[in-house]
Amino acid sequence: MAHVATLVQAGHEVMLTHGNGPQVGNILLKNQLAAPVVPPVPLDWCVAQTQGTIGMLIMAALEAALVPRPVRVATVVTRTLVDRDDPAFADPVKPIGKYFPEADARRFEKLGQRWKAFDRGWRRVVASPEPIEILDAPAAIALMEAGYIVVAAGGGGVPVARNTDGTLSGVEAVIDKDLAAAVMARAVHATALVIATDVPAAVAGYGTPAARPIGRVGVGELRNLQAAGHFASGSMGPKVEAALRFVEDGGRRAVITSLEHIGSALGETAGTPETTDTTGVIGTILEK
Amino acid sequence: MAHVATLVQAGHEVMLTHGNGPQVGNILLKNQLAAPVVPPVPLDWCVAQTQGTIGMLIMAALEAALVPRPVRVATVVTRTLVDRDDPAFADPVKPIGKYFPEADARRFEKLGQRWKAFDRGWRRVVASPEPIEILDAPAAIALMEAGYIVVAAGGGGVPVARNTDGTLSGVEAVIDKDLAAAVMARAVHATALVIATDVPAAVAGYGTPAARPIGRVGVGELRNLQAAGHFASGSMGPKVEAALRFVEDGGRRAVITSLEHIGSALGETAGTPETTDTTGVIGTILEK
Repeated sequence: MAHVATLVQAGHEVMLTHGNGPQVGNILLKNQLAAPVVPPVPLDWCVAQTQGTIGMLIMAALEAALVPRPVRVATVVTRTLVDRDDPAFADPVKPIGKYFPEADARRFEKLGQRWKAFDRGWRRVVASPEPIEILDAPAAIALMEAGYIVVAAGGGGVPVARNTDGTLSGVEAVIDKDLAAAVMARAVHATALVIATDVPAAVAGYGTPAARPIGRVGVGELRNLQAAGHFASGSMGPKVEAALRFVEDGGRRAVITSLEHIGSALGETAGTPETTDTTGVIGTILEK
Repeated sequence: MAHVATLVQAGHEVMLTHGNGPQVGNILLKNQLAAPVVPPVPLDWCVAQTQGTIGMLIMAALEAALVPRPVRVATVVTRTLVDRDDPAFADPVKPIGKYFPEADARRFEKLGQRWKAFDRGWRRVVASPEPIEILDAPAAIALMEAGYIVVAAGGGGVPVARNTDGTLSGVEAVIDKDLAAAVMARAVHATALVIATDVPAAVAGYGTPAARPIGRVGVGELRNLQAAGHFASGSMGPKVEAALRFVEDGGRRAVITSLEHIGSALGETAGTPETTDTTGVIGTILEK
């Protein structure tokens, strides 16, 4: 949060979202280990649980990073609408949680879960449908308008689907956090979508001798690199796709960089290094 | 939520809070059963988890009760400030979660928890300090001002204490939900604090031949009944104390009644019965 605090101090209005993979993995494991005694809760509940805990931790850390300057931070429990007819439900492929022996997997399947064999063991697989709408975005916007830094759409949002009678029900799915962030960023009319990750930039030719970090780039060039298979589906892929969707949908700028460089990538120099590696790239900066 | 919907339709501005005893009990049990494999999370995390899940469920249920009328509902993750020097920390007495055999209790004690022997087995005991301030009440107020029905301070709020450097840290405690509701109700300048429970009213002489439900009552009379030991510490006691504090602190009216009678107790007749038992009492209604 020290790096986010830099942006706040520079006057940026900030909304934060976050992933929850390791945390949901732990909660699922607890559910599974305790299943003989306490019924496991559905996946949408697990996401909501992590919005509570991670939101609370982000608020405390950001406040601490800005002490003694007071800051208004709030976390809203956020639901994301998905389509029950999304093809992802017919073929759940996103692995979540830890590896288990086949015998355990078979037992969990009897609870209605889907499990698949991977190289290192069996993992639960769930649907990862497209985020259509961040249903609680208006509450997040109302708080931003009141001067709050808002934590919202954590873990991609709690996945819900609309029933024929107009009500909502939770669904067993996980929504990609980057794609959900792009939808939220557009809903709040964000100037920039910043995706903070472990590396300073998306890399073309990753793992090859020709590897080069991508700096300033346009939509057409990045779509071409994506089509040529430069970004792995489980890691940089969704980040690149989220950045592209945000800018194609009308957003001004999307940035993919490491956490310590979000300030420099947005043009702030105080407190952040000016360059991130020998190539001088301080982030993949996508503009139309 | 059908009963809350009645209030909303009658034009009341509603803020909702809730308990989380059974849910935290289940989460603790999962933590304990999985402890050999996954480290248990602290109690403040468990409270935050239930704010996410219960908030999400309340929002969906209230929206469903009002379909097709659209309603703005939001849930804020809410922290409640307590004092590290609260005497409750020196002598944790509030039992939480399920009963365990002594051998398990001794094992959990090694994780830093306090356990005590009760008639039916061992239970974990935690501190239940006084709620001093609902730290995220301003965010809840901002949302109410924007027209939202707000779910906040669930489970009494996530217990946090102020460090000497001005930062906040979570503490291992549970805050009484009724007492926290009274603090929140004052913070939002509520006209009425309504405590919905399983019985239509607080009862004087409970369990005796002279038992009588308490209807309209003043602060002096209710304090006298409380001092005479009419309200059990684990059940009606905190509700009566919360009602008293709210009115003594300047609130106009506090109501203790069953969920199905919250409308009648607030003077709304549509959709709710006019009386609740043979005595005609439709709730304990406390005014100065």
